[in-house]
Amino acid sequence: MSSTTLKLTLEYDGTDFVGWQFQLNGRSVQEEIIKAVRRITGQEADVVGAGRTDSGVHAKGQVAHLILADPGNLRDLRYSLNAVLPEDVVIRSLVEVPADFHARFSAKERIYKYFITTERSSIERRFAWWVKYQLDLPVMRTCTEILFGEHDFRSFCRAQAEVTHHRCIVSSAGWETEEGKLVFTISADRFLHGMVRTIVGTLVNVGRGYTSPGDFQGILEAKDRTAAGFAAPPHGLFLWEIVYP
Amino acid sequence: MSSTTLKLTLEYDGTDFVGWQFQLNGRSVQEEIIKAVRRITGQEADVVGAGRTDSGVHAKGQVAHLILADPGNLRDLRYSLNAVLPEDVVIRSLVEVPADFHARFSAKERIYKYFITTERSSIERRFAWWVKYQLDLPVMRTCTEILFGEHDFRSFCRAQAEVTHHRCIVSSAGWETEEGKLVFTISADRFLHGMVRTIVGTLVNVGRGYTSPGDFQGILEAKDRTAAGFAAPPHGLFLWEIVYP
Repeated sequence: MSSTTLKLTLEYDGTDFVGWQFQLNGRSVQEEIIKAVRRITGQEADVVGAGRTDSGVHAKGQVAHLILADPGNLRDLRYSLNAVLPEDVVIRSLVEVPADFHARFSAKERIYKYFITTERSSIERRFAWWVKYQLDLPVMRTCTEILFGEHDFRSFCRAQAEVTHHRCIVSSAGWETEEGKLVFTISADRFLHGMVRTIVGTLVNVGRGYTSPGDFQGILEAKDRTAAGFAAPPHGLFLWEIVYP
Repeated sequence: MSSTTLKLTLEYDGTDFVGWQFQLNGRSVQEEIIKAVRRITGQEADVVGAGRTDSGVHAKGQVAHLILADPGNLRDLRYSLNAVLPEDVVIRSLVEVPADFHARFSAKERIYKYFITTERSSIERRFAWWVKYQLDLPVMRTCTEILFGEHDFRSFCRAQAEVTHHRCIVSSAGWETEEGKLVFTISADRFLHGMVRTIVGTLVNVGRGYTSPGDFQGILEAKDRTAAGFAAPPHGLFLWEIVYP
């Protein structure tokens, strides 16, 4: 009996999930995948995600791996799994990968996007944060550049027992405008818990004139979570892509 | 006491509405606007929409008019109305117009968009129709051109007691592709009940190879609803814009 390592690329609407990670007290994406695999293949698979997403956070390209005995035709398997998955989670692709592939440890780069609407929108309300205030985008961009490169991001991280250090290498970060929307995109080798939302919340404070570029630099250097602003709400955040070598 | 005619531009998520029009047995957008106006101004306004949208159909730019005595500052009024409206309907703009303005009769052009996803999507599921089949876009485009100009669109119209004729002038119609999506845009001086959804359903039959361009021409000329294909589902349709002189 041969076993096969499979890489899943997942899209989900995080609105009604407690997050990626299994929890006893709610619906997790991980559990939905495990249940679908059990139902279709009869196997108890250990589904490992590239990163945890919090309750309410969405994904366009979360990646997970699992090991199955005799998975059969992978196109059919993907089709069958999608047929039993609830409509707020979809397997976008399912491919075989080498046995040493690990969704989390093999990842080289993670990309998140955060969507802001500048006008209240009924259509976008589940997938973007409505910011009512005038935002000074040029000064937000100046501060965004301060994030480039390797830094200790403790100021932008929720208390997390399991991390040994807070250094992350930000390879790109920037703001784009789309009809009535602001889109923040950030790539890094790793992200700490709550990091993107805290960066966005603090940059919005910058855009409102509450935090200067000098202050922003100071917050980063403080290495203290209480220095930064509030976290932006989860529903504007998307885990966009995980990049592998 | 002066009375003022106001033009409202509305965005709504049609998912949980029975449609634009007031109905005894469900939540209509029209009733939500009337209730908000009553609550903020104490006035019973007659809110007239540019066009009815069916249950489940969305709007980015529905237009309505109403007459109010002493509406006060319009920016404040819009703000107050939006504050009491449910989150699935938003007044995007509220402006004073001449007393002879009529949302429906003054409209020169109506623009609808229909969104199709070619892959199942959890994020788009409320706002686009997932079509599982391979679609031949070039032949769909050929048939779309057959719609240009003035035609009797009875074949694409649900039985409707109140219309006196079925002639519509289509000024533009076409398909664009956006990452994993097909977007159909159609402009005309008027639309019949169910017209856009029946056109899209029939064009999807064309794209699947079930209906040839010759058949499509024949359907248009038949002036018989039973000639056309099924109606595409409501959740992919947006009333996009109403154009006034």
